[in-house]
Amino acid sequence: MDPSLVSDLMIPGSSKIVFLIMDGLGGIQMEGKGGTELQVARTPNLDRLAEISSCGLLDPVAPGITPGSGPAHFALFGYDPVQYNIGRGILEATGIDFPLTEKDVVARMNFATVDPAGKVTDRRAGRISTETNQRVCQKIREGLKPGPGLEVIVETVKEHRGILVLRGEGLRGEIQDTDPEREGFPPLEAKALVPEAEETAGRVRNILSQVGRILADEPKANMVLLRGFAKHTRYPSMKERYGLNALAIAAYPMYRGISRLVGMTVLSKVSTLDEEFKALEDNFAEYDFFFLHVKQTDSRGEDGNFDAKVAVIEEVDGYLPRVRALNPDVLVVTGDHSTPAKLAGHSWHPLPVILHSRFCLIDTVKKFDEVSCIQGALGRIRSVELMPLAMANARRLTKFGA
Amino acid sequence: MDPSLVSDLMIPGSSKIVFLIMDGLGGIQMEGKGGTELQVARTPNLDRLAEISSCGLLDPVAPGITPGSGPAHFALFGYDPVQYNIGRGILEATGIDFPLTEKDVVARMNFATVDPAGKVTDRRAGRISTETNQRVCQKIREGLKPGPGLEVIVETVKEHRGILVLRGEGLRGEIQDTDPEREGFPPLEAKALVPEAEETAGRVRNILSQVGRILADEPKANMVLLRGFAKHTRYPSMKERYGLNALAIAAYPMYRGISRLVGMTVLSKVSTLDEEFKALEDNFAEYDFFFLHVKQTDSRGEDGNFDAKVAVIEEVDGYLPRVRALNPDVLVVTGDHSTPAKLAGHSWHPLPVILHSRFCLIDTVKKFDEVSCIQGALGRIRSVELMPLAMANARRLTKFGA
Repeated sequence: MDPSLVSDLMIPGSSKIVFLIMDGLGGIQMEGKGGTELQVARTPNLDRLAEISSCGLLDPVAPGITPGSGPAHFALFGYDPVQYNIGRGILEATGIDFPLTEKDVVARMNFATVDPAGKVTDRRAGRISTETNQRVCQKIREGLKPGPGLEVIVETVKEHRGILVLRGEGLRGEIQDTDPEREGFPPLEAKALVPEAEETAGRVRNILSQVGRILADEPKANMVLLRGFAKHTRYPSMKERYGLNALAIAAYPMYRGISRLVGMTVLSKVSTLDEEFKALEDNFAEYDFFFLHVKQTDSRGEDGNFDAKVAVIEEVDGYLPRVRALNPDVLVVTGDHSTPAKLAGHSWHPLPVILHSRFCLIDTVKKFDEVSCIQGALGRIRSVELMPLAMANARRLTKFGA
Repeated sequence: MDPSLVSDLMIPGSSKIVFLIMDGLGGIQMEGKGGTELQVARTPNLDRLAEISSCGLLDPVAPGITPGSGPAHFALFGYDPVQYNIGRGILEATGIDFPLTEKDVVARMNFATVDPAGKVTDRRAGRISTETNQRVCQKIREGLKPGPGLEVIVETVKEHRGILVLRGEGLRGEIQDTDPEREGFPPLEAKALVPEAEETAGRVRNILSQVGRILADEPKANMVLLRGFAKHTRYPSMKERYGLNALAIAAYPMYRGISRLVGMTVLSKVSTLDEEFKALEDNFAEYDFFFLHVKQTDSRGEDGNFDAKVAVIEEVDGYLPRVRALNPDVLVVTGDHSTPAKLAGHSWHPLPVILHSRFCLIDTVKKFDEVSCIQGALGRIRSVELMPLAMANARRLTKFGA
């Protein structure tokens, strides 16, 4: 559906929408565990909510597609995840709360080790410490001469990872990765992928050549590899698209960053689950859309730790009565994608969703898990279709056509 | 799906398709009633049909979108409801069986009262009677000088409502509403929304200035407000698209009008349910697609009258054996959208559908309601996908590809 359709239909209101998002929530049955993480978890509050709501399954992008965090969240916020597939560089930048501008081309920067012949011997520079990374970044800042009309910013992310930002007029992001993706080969040349990017590519090559000289005496981090070049563009905000004043409550920087990209107000000082739910309560009067992000379900799934993921789900279930006590007009509980402990990583499996409002069709689902929700009234839909449904249930969309 | 795909695959045949459409059929659970309208209604004939058919849920436009009658019906007939979102003026015109031509730009016209300073004091002119409307329309006809190459037609709809038609070569519909949407403000200027509409907009401004003078001595209806300007264009007919000779049986003019827009033959002298079903029987030999429209389900839903809507559904259920006795090759029973009594208006909720033919997959659904049909073989689909399914079950589509 063309998103402008929803924007054309939006009407003002005072209703409140809460999206409680457990990252990597979905799972699959794991041998010896008796079901999926959600099937095994004791979730009386989520089950009770499912019983009086519309349930269903979400495909984050499309059947069979395993999404990264970027597209999975864009889809939840109603932004086409294929169109808004932001570059790796942009995602890293949002992850450190770096304030991007529309003049910026960003790339993910990995420190690496090259031998005297220029071949990469370690693509992660022996996983240098974050402190070393910071020191080497400072060395680049001091030595680099970007040339006229260009500002170059290097920022540490963590260990061997950082970002490189080119800031200036008319820069283009269509530049080939320089990471050879394997050791024993020299870094690739920063080639323009379209003729219009030739000037920017030349500037990148110049920067890399300077960086090579500046870092020549470093024992480990004596080169950088660049990936995921992208020009930052401004996205339509949740306010523009839905007329919503949105608040993001997320402990992890990357999710705060994605929220900022769609114009949400972002709380900075929350780190525990308890602080997150407290922040929801404290700010409930001030906004009309709330994105509350729980990271640990994904982390424990990535660890392959089934029982620990179950425990996180049960912990979140314990907070649900506090959310319901706020009496939001629309309450959505779901995740951004599946991270089955059995796979110890993101997966393509659809994940269950609850949509509750005074006007939802109540189906027969009485338990919140992947298998029960197959029977739900929402059917199997794309994540990107969730926001229009939430808006409708909040009575924020007027009739289409006469 | 590209509609030309179906057109390319259509093959001739003598099979017959019946669409029994209960307007606003879908509902949601209402407190104290024990379910949705369909869950509560006693519908032994519909339930028996569901038991031997494929069932499912329809999204008229897309999840979350509440459709007007226009797009909802276009979708049922297999026309993309976003592409074929006809203007309010066109819909009003079809609603009084006004014969539109491809030279026409149409606007909905509301009589209003303005004060001596030109500010709107009543947007509905004190809801004048239909007789007053007719008298004032005649006064405009007699006094108005449209100018060279232009014909202007004013027609009464009902009470304060009417239509204004500009007929001529090269007219454009991209003209701003003149209705200020609130009282205490003068009517807006009829501005062109694209440069190409400037000439037409100028003609509208001239007409409005004349109408102001002609109606100056009217106590209530001394001005008109125009909304929903649209150029009428010819739509591909059901015959062109599906090779079907289609008959519309509808008591309400607007639905006859929409049917006429897609090239159906339209019966004019049916007003009661009994006459509608009788007309289906009488004309069954002559056509191969039948659209039978029941308005009262929607009207009672709009009234917020749950019990009355249930009664209409039960009444229609009583007619079903007569439809089945005709032995159509394909029988579809559904609605155009939901009008839950709880909401007393159109809504975004998907609505149940039965598709019966000798070749349908029989699922486990044994009751015709919103919750039971979730389990159906059709799943949750868009209304626009229904016609290709009906055509396939009528054996009117050949194989795609080798």
